[in-house]
Amino acid sequence: MQFYDQEVSSRFLIGTALYPSPSIMLEAIKASGSDIVTVSLRRESGKEQSGQNFWSYIKETGAKVLPNTAGCKTVKEAVTTAHMAREIFETPWVKLEVIGEDDSLQPDVFGLVEAAKILSEDGFQVFPYTTEDLVVAEKLIAAGCEVLMPWGAPIGSGRGLNNIYGLRSLRAHFPKVPLIVDAGIGLPSHAAAAMELGYDGVLLNTAVAKAGDPVLMAKAFAMAIESGHLSFIADPIEKRDMAAPSTPVAGLPFWNQEHA
Amino acid sequence: MQFYDQEVSSRFLIGTALYPSPSIMLEAIKASGSDIVTVSLRRESGKEQSGQNFWSYIKETGAKVLPNTAGCKTVKEAVTTAHMAREIFETPWVKLEVIGEDDSLQPDVFGLVEAAKILSEDGFQVFPYTTEDLVVAEKLIAAGCEVLMPWGAPIGSGRGLNNIYGLRSLRAHFPKVPLIVDAGIGLPSHAAAAMELGYDGVLLNTAVAKAGDPVLMAKAFAMAIESGHLSFIADPIEKRDMAAPSTPVAGLPFWNQEHA
Amino acid sequence: MQFYDQEVSSRFLIGTALYPSPSIMLEAIKASGSDIVTVSLRRESGKEQSGQNFWSYIKETGAKVLPNTAGCKTVKEAVTTAHMAREIFETPWVKLEVIGEDDSLQPDVFGLVEAAKILSEDGFQVFPYTTEDLVVAEKLIAAGCEVLMPWGAPIGSGRGLNNIYGLRSLRAHFPKVPLIVDAGIGLPSHAAAAMELGYDGVLLNTAVAKAGDPVLMAKAFAMAIESGHLSFIADPIEKRDMAAPSTPVAGLPFWNQEHA
Amino acid sequence: MQFYDQEVSSRFLIGTALYPSPSIMLEAIKASGSDIVTVSLRRESGKEQSGQNFWSYIKETGAKVLPNTAGCKTVKEAVTTAHMAREIFETPWVKLEVIGEDDSLQPDVFGLVEAAKILSEDGFQVFPYTTEDLVVAEKLIAAGCEVLMPWGAPIGSGRGLNNIYGLRSLRAHFPKVPLIVDAGIGLPSHAAAAMELGYDGVLLNTAVAKAGDPVLMAKAFAMAIESGHLSFIADPIEKRDMAAPSTPVAGLPFWNQEHA
Repeated sequence: MQFYDQEVSSRFLIGTALYPSPSIMLEAIKASGSDIVTVSLRRESGKEQSGQNFWSYIKETGAKVLPNTAGCKTVKEAVTTAHMAREIFETPWVKLEVIGEDDSLQPDVFGLVEAAKILSEDGFQVFPYTTEDLVVAEKLIAAGCEVLMPWGAPIGSGRGLNNIYGLRSLRAHFPKVPLIVDAGIGLPSHAAAAMELGYDGVLLNTAVAKAGDPVLMAKAFAMAIESGHLSFIADPIEKRDMAAPSTPVAGLPFWNQEHA
Repeated sequence: MQFYDQEVSSRFLIGTALYPSPSIMLEAIKASGSDIVTVSLRRESGKEQSGQNFWSYIKETGAKVLPNTAGCKTVKEAVTTAHMAREIFETPWVKLEVIGEDDSLQPDVFGLVEAAKILSEDGFQVFPYTTEDLVVAEKLIAAGCEVLMPWGAPIGSGRGLNNIYGLRSLRAHFPKVPLIVDAGIGLPSHAAAAMELGYDGVLLNTAVAKAGDPVLMAKAFAMAIESGHLSFIADPIEKRDMAAPSTPVAGLPFWNQEHA
Repeated sequence: MQFYDQEVSSRFLIGTALYPSPSIMLEAIKASGSDIVTVSLRRESGKEQSGQNFWSYIKETGAKVLPNTAGCKTVKEAVTTAHMAREIFETPWVKLEVIGEDDSLQPDVFGLVEAAKILSEDGFQVFPYTTEDLVVAEKLIAAGCEVLMPWGAPIGSGRGLNNIYGLRSLRAHFPKVPLIVDAGIGLPSHAAAAMELGYDGVLLNTAVAKAGDPVLMAKAFAMAIESGHLSFIADPIEKRDMAAPSTPVAGLPFWNQEHA
Repeated sequence: MQFYDQEVSSRFLIGTALYPSPSIMLEAIKASGSDIVTVSLRRESGKEQSGQNFWSYIKETGAKVLPNTAGCKTVKEAVTTAHMAREIFETPWVKLEVIGEDDSLQPDVFGLVEAAKILSEDGFQVFPYTTEDLVVAEKLIAAGCEVLMPWGAPIGSGRGLNNIYGLRSLRAHFPKVPLIVDAGIGLPSHAAAAMELGYDGVLLNTAVAKAGDPVLMAKAFAMAIESGHLSFIADPIEKRDMAAPSTPVAGLPFWNQEHA
């Protein structure tokens, strides 16, 4: 799978906030098998030594860094943060968050499109945190985005996929754009369900970092994401409205059942 | 994990019907990592040579055989079939199906309890295919069953978990009885969700055998079942009604955030 | 609509427990428009004067009384209670509850079928409180029941319809038997949904009696139940997977649109 | 209830497209009890006599007309259509649709906000057809809208409420703005559920016009919408996770149960 011109092997993108300790974070990232970690610039901009330590921990994972603009509420703030991130992390990648509402932390889709355009024109490779809105998606693509990251549910809510129909619709309308469900995932079954819809990846943070055992949970999500992806490829059975026997009733071997 | 006195390592129990060919079945079972395969006696009772071949295929998997009484509609038929199975497969295990209704293939819980009692008293170790009914569960346990296999949805329907509340309730009422969701699973996310409820295992057949690529799908389910189990152990986050930031807004390192 | 040989005009059956006061109960029953109220014998068997008062309140509603065996846990207890009820309330009707489990108050389907048989043979007209189990339904009908009352969810839980697929299946298998969803309803939309499945009536108690304004809530449920029933008759549109315009785009009058 | 400065008594807003005939439309509108009908200008702009007839039918209902800009895909088109509508229908009201996507007919929230601003400044009273997006809602209000009409699901899909969490969140964030669920409703239970969330009204068209019996279905929806509204006022019981008896087990009158 490719995001922009970068090949990645894992479909699990993982966040670096909220872990009980840096060493648990490190172990969890390893257990996740992720190639890509998101990092908040805000954290890094502190003057504390701990910033340095944190950065060295991240480096140790060997993962690509996807800096994010978490907490930014205006286009200007997000653009400035992105520039700082590019300098610090030496990558054109940026997970673009323009937060429009304090409780739900939902995207401000207006600011998002505007910031995405500014940054794309300036050479950034933007991963926009967006809603499942098809029209917004179209505008983000027009603004230069080659990846979209619709939410499953509000950040940190653990609710899973609030609007499955909307996410399925987005997938159907953009069959060739890499789509990553970002935010709201609480359980591995949620992540598997996203992948079963044909999504290309899942980004999450809280569900791992705040689990009782983050390392084990990271492993669980890694398996679920891979599982959902394999299922999508393997062409699952259709739901049937009435029950059908899985065991032929006649006394014939199963490879003859078509003739029974 | 133990079923009766047998230790098993995989929580995925897989069926042997409906595959496109015996060799695909064999590969799918291998990919599933299952320790236990269910086999229908009815198929084996045919006089065709193919019966012998089928049996040798099953042996090749190295898995324990859980003979089933699929297609039996009366206590007598189920008991007779179980006896034949014990002779042929040389195991006290039997997956007891007493089918009460042709369309949904749902259990006849009356016949089921009666047959479970007869067979348990006769030394069988019964795995009853049942509904999520708590009272029926109590009676099955009183009849000697040490494992219960409630349905997720009708056999072959691929609908997943029709009554999540009922399944959760069953788990809560029988915390120490091994519980396996049997039937109705269509997608890995369904299987993961069952395990996230604290179930001990998942038995399925159609969702693998009739998938476009049964071998890949077997692998997908294996990962999902393990994933859901790990998640249950790892203590997932609670759902929250309002969004919460997963990234602290202050410029502090994350391990200090409690003091922020 | 008929239950046994009695014509009733309302499809809303209402309970008489848990109201803040008898006068509110009376008003709520009037607001419900119910023809049928369920009454627990246990309450009536007290020696208090209040029992007499309660009974006179019920009479004032003009509704048919459907005595219930609420709280009975054995066949014997239920049968004895039914006999007392027949004497006191002078009706062959009985809502038969044989409770099998203390937390969920779910039916003991074994005891239920046995008691239904005993009572039917003794001239009772039994309204069994049951699950959505098709096989149990068949046995209750064979035992003489001409009405079935499957649960939506546990009594008093307000959860609505826990197993919509099961309830739909029951309706499909017994197109001519009057079916009433009994228990678990919390909101008018739940009751409407039950009727939209083609159910013949809804019985509830807690959702009205424990609402902030029981009288207003009784009215709300009356409308929802009637609404769902009308919808079932009026042949609703099918769900569509993709959106379709409800307004023709051409400049033609709507009655010509077929030719547009 | 008020929309802008107009008092309305019914919370059911009904569309005028897709009926089998004008007389059935007329009857259905009467059965709905609606005070407000939406009318597409596009239909009226035809040169056919039938346009005149249609208009006289609408007048006969006595309902307020809410002209809509259905089918408009650009700000300019919507604004022009709104102006024509104001002239023809002599009302400052306009249901503003700026369609952003052909399959789902979903709003283009960018064009919507822009057109809402232009029209509000020009003295229109705008009812914007929008999504459940909180940030878009904020911008529409800033643009002058005093009513919001978020979708339940795509127009004509009959799917109900695709994102209940989003709709609940919108209600919570704008407790004083009249909110109407517009589009996607298929069944009365969907409409009741919208009102139970605290919404102020429901607008629908296809679910009535394309039902087998539109007149009966209009009546069903009228009852469901009123029912859901009453329920919201009457303070419903909370869902409980475990069952609770609705009938006290002790032999005490119900008004003493607190002391039992």
